[in-house]
Amino acid sequence: METVMTLGNVNGFLIDIDGVLTTGDTAIAGARGAIELLKTQGFPFRCVSNSTRKCRATLAARLDNLGFDIPKNALFTPPLAAVKYMKESGKHRACLLTTGDVDRDFESISIETDSTAVDYVIIGDAGDRVTYASMNQAFRCVMEGADIIALEKDRYWMASEGLSLSAGPFVEALEYATGKTAIVVGKPSKEFFSLALGDMGLSAKETVMIGDDIFTDIGGAQASGIRGILVKTGKFREDVFEKSTIRPAAVLNTVGDIQDLIK
Amino acid sequence: METVMTLGNVNGFLIDIDGVLTTGDTAIAGARGAIELLKTQGFPFRCVSNSTRKCRATLAARLDNLGFDIPKNALFTPPLAAVKYMKESGKHRACLLTTGDVDRDFESISIETDSTAVDYVIIGDAGDRVTYASMNQAFRCVMEGADIIALEKDRYWMASEGLSLSAGPFVEALEYATGKTAIVVGKPSKEFFSLALGDMGLSAKETVMIGDDIFTDIGGAQASGIRGILVKTGKFREDVFEKSTIRPAAVLNTVGDIQDLIK
Repeated sequence: METVMTLGNVNGFLIDIDGVLTTGDTAIAGARGAIELLKTQGFPFRCVSNSTRKCRATLAARLDNLGFDIPKNALFTPPLAAVKYMKESGKHRACLLTTGDVDRDFESISIETDSTAVDYVIIGDAGDRVTYASMNQAFRCVMEGADIIALEKDRYWMASEGLSLSAGPFVEALEYATGKTAIVVGKPSKEFFSLALGDMGLSAKETVMIGDDIFTDIGGAQASGIRGILVKTGKFREDVFEKSTIRPAAVLNTVGDIQDLIK
Repeated sequence: METVMTLGNVNGFLIDIDGVLTTGDTAIAGARGAIELLKTQGFPFRCVSNSTRKCRATLAARLDNLGFDIPKNALFTPPLAAVKYMKESGKHRACLLTTGDVDRDFESISIETDSTAVDYVIIGDAGDRVTYASMNQAFRCVMEGADIIALEKDRYWMASEGLSLSAGPFVEALEYATGKTAIVVGKPSKEFFSLALGDMGLSAKETVMIGDDIFTDIGGAQASGIRGILVKTGKFREDVFEKSTIRPAAVLNTVGDIQDLIK
């Protein structure tokens, strides 16, 4: 099934990275051209990802290596969404439960170790940084008044050593212990889409989300009033799409076909 | 407020340990006498506790040291409830996520490390045994078909170094990740009371629970059709009791006053 439409009133794009621009360690055919087209035509866009183990600079270097020419400020990930959320709230003190080099995205934030001096506990996919001690530290901050910011609330992912827990289960643990509900700043939360739109200075109705996941990308965007274009790369599966009640504004074989819609 | 009643049709007792028989490192006044009275009168009883960091033998030694003469088989804790549950289910292979010497209560169970060969993931208050690796191990067992047995689902407790997470948050994490609901074999679950009654061979309506917690002890017992007697020791607080809609069958100053009800 192929749906083609002429997009009207589109002034900007949100583009998922994994499965739309890249798959594993390669660029998806046509993806580099699509990015060049958007730049040539002057469309603002943000490349979005729920990755919470890599900072923006590392993600940018990876895309560079795959031949993409994407300005660093066109990358928008949950850690950047969290920083934007904190700055807008006027509160700047955080306790981080993350791994990898994600802490580099928080250089403009005060990282605190005293549990009584924390405004936000920020929890991402923290891998081996999840210990009883680190969970207790996060828990005590919340009991002392901090709010919880979840960089994502995914359940699990496939690591090389087998299925592995994402941030979601540990966010859920903190919510259960404290009775507080986390602010989720990753896809598919409304908060994430709102912060990404704010970063471009665009409204929901003039923006289109391009993704390979019918639920989090397309369904999530639509729940925020953003139109969705589904691509048949990455995790796309015809049977899942056919069974879903979510209908994207368009379905493309690859993101490269975006040229047919915006010329 | 004092309520005294003559108990009719009582053939056995469930007695909370912490706050009813002991407080910190001392025996509560009259508690040793109450236990002697039950033994003299030939009432079956089980001393119950949600402690999941100590095996039965260690709990028994502690009560011995405080001058109680309680047969070991009159102690009934969540690990013993879990073993009883497993044996009744006919499935014997477990993955343990516990700490302390609780594993000694599972000597009659096959402890497996291969995630494809596990019937039950058993999770208690595991303290520093909670790591990303141990949580992933438990998670993978459940994804391979194991069910989750929670020794308790409490939120937190006061450790010497500050508020510390109990088993509950990590049970919740596994439930969120896997979509499975844990079988809770600790107070105040119906499963716990049912297993404790089965251990004595008594029905709910001929049994009385004695506890200091109006919610988990009295409310929990009543939800299982067991009458509850509240004692004014341990965590009892008059204002909490007055505000609660839960009405025990009797309220006693200490468990020692049980002699007024059963003579």
